[in-house]
Amino acid sequence: MAIEGSSTSSTRRIRLGMVGGGRDAFIGGVHRIASRIDDRYELVAGAFSSTPEKSKASAADLGVADDRAYGDYVEMAKREARLKNGIEAVAIVTPNHMHFPVAREFLKRGIHVICDKPLTSTLADARKLAKVAEASGALFVLTHNYTGYPMIRQAREMIARGDIGAIRLVQVEYAQDWLSEPLEETGQKQAGWRTDPAQSGAGGSTGDIGTHAFNLASFVSGLELSQLCADLDSFVEGRQLDDNGHVLMRFSGGAKGMLWCSQVAPGNENALKLRIYGEKGGLEWAQEDPNYLWYTPLGQPKQLLTRNGAGATAAGQRLSRIPGGHPEGYLEGFANIYTEAADAIVARRSGNPIPDGVMFPGIDEGLAGVAFVTACVESSRRGGSWVKFGTYCKR
Amino acid sequence: MAIEGSSTSSTRRIRLGMVGGGRDAFIGGVHRIASRIDDRYELVAGAFSSTPEKSKASAADLGVADDRAYGDYVEMAKREARLKNGIEAVAIVTPNHMHFPVAREFLKRGIHVICDKPLTSTLADARKLAKVAEASGALFVLTHNYTGYPMIRQAREMIARGDIGAIRLVQVEYAQDWLSEPLEETGQKQAGWRTDPAQSGAGGSTGDIGTHAFNLASFVSGLELSQLCADLDSFVEGRQLDDNGHVLMRFSGGAKGMLWCSQVAPGNENALKLRIYGEKGGLEWAQEDPNYLWYTPLGQPKQLLTRNGAGATAAGQRLSRIPGGHPEGYLEGFANIYTEAADAIVARRSGNPIPDGVMFPGIDEGLAGVAFVTACVESSRRGGSWVKFGTYCKR
Amino acid sequence: MAIEGSSTSSTRRIRLGMVGGGRDAFIGGVHRIASRIDDRYELVAGAFSSTPEKSKASAADLGVADDRAYGDYVEMAKREARLKNGIEAVAIVTPNHMHFPVAREFLKRGIHVICDKPLTSTLADARKLAKVAEASGALFVLTHNYTGYPMIRQAREMIARGDIGAIRLVQVEYAQDWLSEPLEETGQKQAGWRTDPAQSGAGGSTGDIGTHAFNLASFVSGLELSQLCADLDSFVEGRQLDDNGHVLMRFSGGAKGMLWCSQVAPGNENALKLRIYGEKGGLEWAQEDPNYLWYTPLGQPKQLLTRNGAGATAAGQRLSRIPGGHPEGYLEGFANIYTEAADAIVARRSGNPIPDGVMFPGIDEGLAGVAFVTACVESSRRGGSWVKFGTYCKR
Amino acid sequence: MAIEGSSTSSTRRIRLGMVGGGRDAFIGGVHRIASRIDDRYELVAGAFSSTPEKSKASAADLGVADDRAYGDYVEMAKREARLKNGIEAVAIVTPNHMHFPVAREFLKRGIHVICDKPLTSTLADARKLAKVAEASGALFVLTHNYTGYPMIRQAREMIARGDIGAIRLVQVEYAQDWLSEPLEETGQKQAGWRTDPAQSGAGGSTGDIGTHAFNLASFVSGLELSQLCADLDSFVEGRQLDDNGHVLMRFSGGAKGMLWCSQVAPGNENALKLRIYGEKGGLEWAQEDPNYLWYTPLGQPKQLLTRNGAGATAAGQRLSRIPGGHPEGYLEGFANIYTEAADAIVARRSGNPIPDGVMFPGIDEGLAGVAFVTACVESSRRGGSWVKFGTYCKR
Repeated sequence: MAIEGSSTSSTRRIRLGMVGGGRDAFIGGVHRIASRIDDRYELVAGAFSSTPEKSKASAADLGVADDRAYGDYVEMAKREARLKNGIEAVAIVTPNHMHFPVAREFLKRGIHVICDKPLTSTLADARKLAKVAEASGALFVLTHNYTGYPMIRQAREMIARGDIGAIRLVQVEYAQDWLSEPLEETGQKQAGWRTDPAQSGAGGSTGDIGTHAFNLASFVSGLELSQLCADLDSFVEGRQLDDNGHVLMRFSGGAKGMLWCSQVAPGNENALKLRIYGEKGGLEWAQEDPNYLWYTPLGQPKQLLTRNGAGATAAGQRLSRIPGGHPEGYLEGFANIYTEAADAIVARRSGNPIPDGVMFPGIDEGLAGVAFVTACVESSRRGGSWVKFGTYCKR
Repeated sequence: MAIEGSSTSSTRRIRLGMVGGGRDAFIGGVHRIASRIDDRYELVAGAFSSTPEKSKASAADLGVADDRAYGDYVEMAKREARLKNGIEAVAIVTPNHMHFPVAREFLKRGIHVICDKPLTSTLADARKLAKVAEASGALFVLTHNYTGYPMIRQAREMIARGDIGAIRLVQVEYAQDWLSEPLEETGQKQAGWRTDPAQSGAGGSTGDIGTHAFNLASFVSGLELSQLCADLDSFVEGRQLDDNGHVLMRFSGGAKGMLWCSQVAPGNENALKLRIYGEKGGLEWAQEDPNYLWYTPLGQPKQLLTRNGAGATAAGQRLSRIPGGHPEGYLEGFANIYTEAADAIVARRSGNPIPDGVMFPGIDEGLAGVAFVTACVESSRRGGSWVKFGTYCKR
Repeated sequence: MAIEGSSTSSTRRIRLGMVGGGRDAFIGGVHRIASRIDDRYELVAGAFSSTPEKSKASAADLGVADDRAYGDYVEMAKREARLKNGIEAVAIVTPNHMHFPVAREFLKRGIHVICDKPLTSTLADARKLAKVAEASGALFVLTHNYTGYPMIRQAREMIARGDIGAIRLVQVEYAQDWLSEPLEETGQKQAGWRTDPAQSGAGGSTGDIGTHAFNLASFVSGLELSQLCADLDSFVEGRQLDDNGHVLMRFSGGAKGMLWCSQVAPGNENALKLRIYGEKGGLEWAQEDPNYLWYTPLGQPKQLLTRNGAGATAAGQRLSRIPGGHPEGYLEGFANIYTEAADAIVARRSGNPIPDGVMFPGIDEGLAGVAFVTACVESSRRGGSWVKFGTYCKR
Repeated sequence: MAIEGSSTSSTRRIRLGMVGGGRDAFIGGVHRIASRIDDRYELVAGAFSSTPEKSKASAADLGVADDRAYGDYVEMAKREARLKNGIEAVAIVTPNHMHFPVAREFLKRGIHVICDKPLTSTLADARKLAKVAEASGALFVLTHNYTGYPMIRQAREMIARGDIGAIRLVQVEYAQDWLSEPLEETGQKQAGWRTDPAQSGAGGSTGDIGTHAFNLASFVSGLELSQLCADLDSFVEGRQLDDNGHVLMRFSGGAKGMLWCSQVAPGNENALKLRIYGEKGGLEWAQEDPNYLWYTPLGQPKQLLTRNGAGATAAGQRLSRIPGGHPEGYLEGFANIYTEAADAIVARRSGNPIPDGVMFPGIDEGLAGVAFVTACVESSRRGGSWVKFGTYCKR
C-alpha cells in the first residue's frame, strides 16, 4: 500500500491529454478525478469538445493552458506528438463510435491510450483497432474500472490459487433502472447516445453494462466463454436498442453461467453482482458494497471478508489506500486502473517490463467485449439460439 | 389474524391421516408440526412405513392408536373410508414416485389429499392424477409451502392491484449446496432418493427445488409461461439427475425471466429468491429472510416492508399470527397451507364455497410443475433449444 | 434434533391449564401455539377470563371441555388439584400484577407453573413468590422466550467454552416504536395495562422489554451484574411509566455494559440485539434475524453462523427442528421453552433428574428481572446514580 | 454537484502547506488525497518531519520543491508568510499535542489552518487556541471528516426541516478492535502515540474516536449536550488511557442519548453508527456503508435512502460527485471538508462571505470535543457521576 510513488520531480507526473469530457459530459470528470487521486498524472491538453471555443472554455475550468486546448483530436494528436513536453498519454471519453478513430490517431504516434469502454461500436472497428494497437509501441488501457476494486483483485487471486476449487458456476448480473421510461425522448444526453445505434453500436444495455458484467466475470474467474444463448428485449416502446439482456453461458472446461443486464429493473441503481461457485467453495461480491467479499468454503461457516481486513490477500492490499472499515468506492477503484496504467507507462519510459502484479484491461478484453455484444445480438435475432463465441473473438 | 377458529367441539379438528413420515423421514415431521400450529387437525391414522411393525412404532411415538397404524396405504384408504370417524384428509409425504398411486386411493374414496410436491415423478402420472382429482369430490392440496409465507401473499396482492405496473421481468432462483459432493454415495437417505430417477423422476434439482421456484414465480406474478430454454448439468461425477439448471423463460404477454436452481452452489442453504420488475416498480423477496419484502417504486426511495408492519396488505396480515418484528418462519408458512386447506375442508363439510381469499396450490399447479421439469429436461437434451410450454401442460 | 418424543400414549402429552388468554388477549395465543408445536402438551382446562361466561366461550373456541372452564383461578387450582386427570401444569398469561397470586395457588398444590414475564409487578411479590416456589415440589418456568432461540443457546455455549475469551463488554438493546404516541389513551388494551403502574409495576419499558434484554445478556454471557446506573424517561406526555431506559452496567469480574430499552424509537419493531466482546472475539445476534449469529474471532475474518448450519454447536442443533436456511422464528423459540419444560416435567413425573442440557429461566431469573427494574427506577429517581444490584436481588 | 470549479488559472488552486505527514505517517496521505480529489489545492511546501533531511526526502516524493521543505514549522510559518507565492493554507497532521503550537504559528500570520482532530491534547490548549483563532483573520478548519459524508449532510438537513419531529433519542457509537491487544508494546507507531498521555492527552478511545462520535451526533442532531455520565476503562493491562468508554448524555431540551466508543470490540473495524429518533420518525446511518441512510417515518414503511438517489436532499446532492449506486467512500467524504474549506478560502480571498450551505467543523467544534474528553475523564474518575458539560466548554 503506497499512496505516493517516489521519483524525480520532472517526471513525477505523467503528462495526460483528454478527448471528450467537456462541460456537459459525465465520465470525463470521473477520469480526471481518477487520474488525480494518486497524483500520477497532470492534465495538460485536451480536445474536450468539438469546437475550439467550447474546448477552450473547458480547458480554462480545468487549468489547462489555452494553447493546449483543441477543437479537433487529429490536430491535437499531431501537435502534441511534436511538442517537447507533449502528452505521454491520452484519455478517450467520447461516445463509443468515436473510440476507434480517436485511439488510432494517438496510438500511431506512440501516445499511450486510456480509453473508456466498450472498445468500439462495431466489431469491425474493434478488429481494426486491435491491429493498430498491436502495431503501436504505445499501451492501450481500457477502463473496465470494476476490475480495479481491491476485493475483485482479491477474488481473482483466491480463485487462481484454488480457494474454491474448479469453477462450476458463474452468475453475474448488472441491473439498473434509469431507462425504465423513455428518458431519451426528453433530450437527456446520457440516455440519448446510449440508445442510439449510430453512437453506441448494436447493443444497448448489453454494450453499456453487459460488457462490464462479462468482463468482470471473465477477469475474476479466468474462464473462457465458448458458447452463449441470448434473449434481448427493448421493453420501452420505440427504443431501438436492447434495454434488457438474458444470457446463458457455457465456458471452456464445462463451467456454466448466467448473465443478466438490465436498465429497466426499478430499485436497481448500479447493481453489478458476481457470484462464482467451485467444487470447494463460493465467492460473492456486489459493486454497491464493494468493500466486502463473501467467501463460502464448502461445509464451513460463511466468511465476510473486508477490504484490507483479516484474510486480505496481497493483491487486495496492494490496491487499498486506507485501512479496512473506512470504505473506498467507485472513484478509488477507477483510480486503481489509472495508477496501474501509470506504473506500466513509467516502466515503458525506462524500457523496463511492466512490474509483477500490475494489470489492466486492454485490447483483448475490449475485443472480447464487442464480440460479446455482437454475439448476443445475433443469438437473440436468431430466436435465442446458441452461438459459438470464438468466431466472434477472432481478430 | 385469527389464531384459533370457533366451532363446535366435535368437529373442531379435522381428522388427518398420513402416508409416509416414519422414523427416518424428514418432511413428514414438518407436515405434522404444520398441521398442529393452528390446531385445525388431529392426526389419527397413518401408514407411516411400509411394514406394519415400523408403522406401529411410529404411531406409538405420535400418539396414534395402534389399530389405526397401517403397513399398507391401500388397506388404510379402504378401512378409513369405512370407519365412522375415519380420516377426512390424508397427508402424503412419500418420495415422488408414490404420490400418484397413493393419492388415487384416497381421492377415489372422497378423502381430501394434502400432498407433498412435486405432484408426481412423471408427466403421464401427473395427467392421470389430474383426471382422478377432477372426478373426485375431494380437495387436492399440493404443499408448495413457500406460497404460504405472508410476504409472498402480500407481494401477490400488490402485483394484482397494480403496484408495480405491467410486469417485464421475473428473476427467480433457488440455490443450495448440500449436493456439492456425491452425498448419495454415502447412503444418506435424503440424497439417495432425490438423485434416483426411479424415485424422483427425470429432474434432479429441477424437480426438487426448481419446481418450487417456478411455482412461486407463477403464483406471485400471475404470469403464464409460454416458452423456455434450459441448460441442465450434473456437475458431480456419476450423478444421474441434474444438480444445476439454468433456464430462460418467456411469458405470455411479453415478460421475460430467468430461473436458476442449483444444489451445488457452496454457501447457499435454501436461497430461494424472487425478484419481479414491472413498468412502475419492483419487488424482491428472499426465503431465508421471509419477514421482509423490498418494494421499489420507480423514482421513489426503496421501501423495506415487514410482515404485519407498516404497509401490510390484507392478505399479508391474514396469514400472520404475531406482530411485525417477531419473525415467523418456514413452519408457520407451511402451517398456512394446512390452515387454508382446513378452511376449505370445513367449507366442503357444510356444502359452502371456499371462503374468499383462501387459496392453496392444487392439481393445476402440480401438473404445471411436472410439465416444467419435463420441458426443461427435453430442452436441455436438445442442446438448450426453446420449447413451447403449453404442450407439456395439456391434460 | 428430535421432532417428537417417544412415550406411552396415556402420558404422552402433559395436561395443561391456562390462566388468562381469553378472546381479547395476545400472549395467551402465543403460549398455546408454543405448547402445540412439539406436541408435548394438551390444553384441558382454563380460567381464560374473569367471568365464567367469557371463560367458557374461550374454552369452546379452544376445544376445552365446558366443565374445565373456570371464571376464577382459585377455584380452578382447587378443583384441578383434586381431579384424577387434573392439569399437571398451568400457563399464566395475565397482566404482571396477577402473576404472583395466581402462581401461588398452583405452586402450593404441586402444579407446575409456566409463567409469562416479568415475574411480578413488585419486588416484594417477587420475593414472596420465590419462597412459595422454593417450598413447592413443582417446577417454576418463566417464559423469557428469547433464551429459547437456537442461536442464543449456541452463543451461550460458545462463550462458556471460551470461544471469545474473557468477556469485556456486553452491549444489549431492545427497541420498539409502538408507544411513540399515547396509544394507551385510545383504549388499546395492550398499551393500557403496560403503561399502568397498578398492573405493570414500577417499570414501563424497563419491565416490558428491558427485563428481556437484561435476562438475555445474563443468560448468554453468564455474567453477574454488580452495579447499574439508569436514566429513565417518559417521553410521551402524561405517561406514568418509563418508555425509554438508558442503563450503564458493571459486572462482577470487571466487564462493563450498556443496556438500552425503548418503546419510542420509530422504525424499530422488536429490535432486541445483543453484542458481547471478549479478549479473543465477539458475538452479535439480532432477534429480528434470529437464524444468524456473527462470530468475530480477533484477527480473523468475520463468520456468519447460521442455525443448524456449518459451525453449529450441540446446543444450537438440539433446539433446531429443521435444516439451516429454512428459518425458524419467534414461535419456535417460544416452543423450545415449553419443550424444555416438558422434558423437565416428564423427568419429575418419574423422579428422575432434569436431563443434561435442558434449561429454562426460573425463579432466580424472575427475581433478578424484577430487581433489575426496581434498581433502574431507584437509580433514575436519584438522578442517575450508581446502585448496587446485589441488594435488590436478595431474597 | 460541480466536479471542478471555474476560475482564472493563476488562482485556480489554493497553495497548501503541510506540517507532519512524512514517510511513516498515515493521516497525512489521507489529507493529501482529500486535497487533490476536487483539484482545489496544490501542495507547495511542508515541514513533513522534524529533521530537514527527512522532510526534504518526503518533499521529493511529493513533488514539493526542495527549498520549500522545512525541518521546523516555525521557520516554515515565518518564511512562507513572507514569500510572494507563499502558502495560503496549512494542513496540520501531527499527533494531538502539537496541534496547538503549530496552529498558533500559522494563524497569527493569517494563514488558514486545516487541522486534524482532536483540536488539542488539553483543554487549556484548546481554550488558548480558540483565542488565537478568534484574533486571527484566517479560517480554522477541523477535519471531523465524517461530517463530510453526503448522507450525513442529508440527515442533518432532514432533521433541520422537521422530517423526524422533535428529537428524543441520540444513540451513537464508534467501535474498533485494533487495540484489543497491547499493540503499543510492539512499537507500532499509530498505537504508540494514541495510548501515550503526553501525545494524546487525557483521553484514549474517547479522544481518538469518541470525539468523532460526539461531533457527528451534535452535527446531525443540532442538539447541545448539557450533562454526561461516563464510565471509562482500560481493558488491556498496562494501558494508560481508556480503550473503552460508556457515556450517558442529557441534551438541552430534554433529549437523551448514549455514546459508546471502544477500541477493544473484536469484529469492529471502524463501526461508527448514528441513530436519531424523534417524535415522528427515525434516521440510522453507518460509516462503513455510508451511501445508505435509513429513514423510518413513524407508522410508515422503512425507507432506504441512497446517496444521490430517490429522495436525495439538496445538501446530499451538493456533496456527491457521482450517481447513486456507485459508492463514494471515506476519501470522498474527507475531500468534501477540503472542498468546503476551499470555497470558504476563495470567498475570503475576494472579501466575500462564505457561500450559503458551505460548512465545516471549526474551533467551536474542536473546543467541544476536547471538553467532551475532559468531562468524560472527570466523570469517570468520580465513579461515573454526572457532570455539567457547559462548564467544560467555556472559553
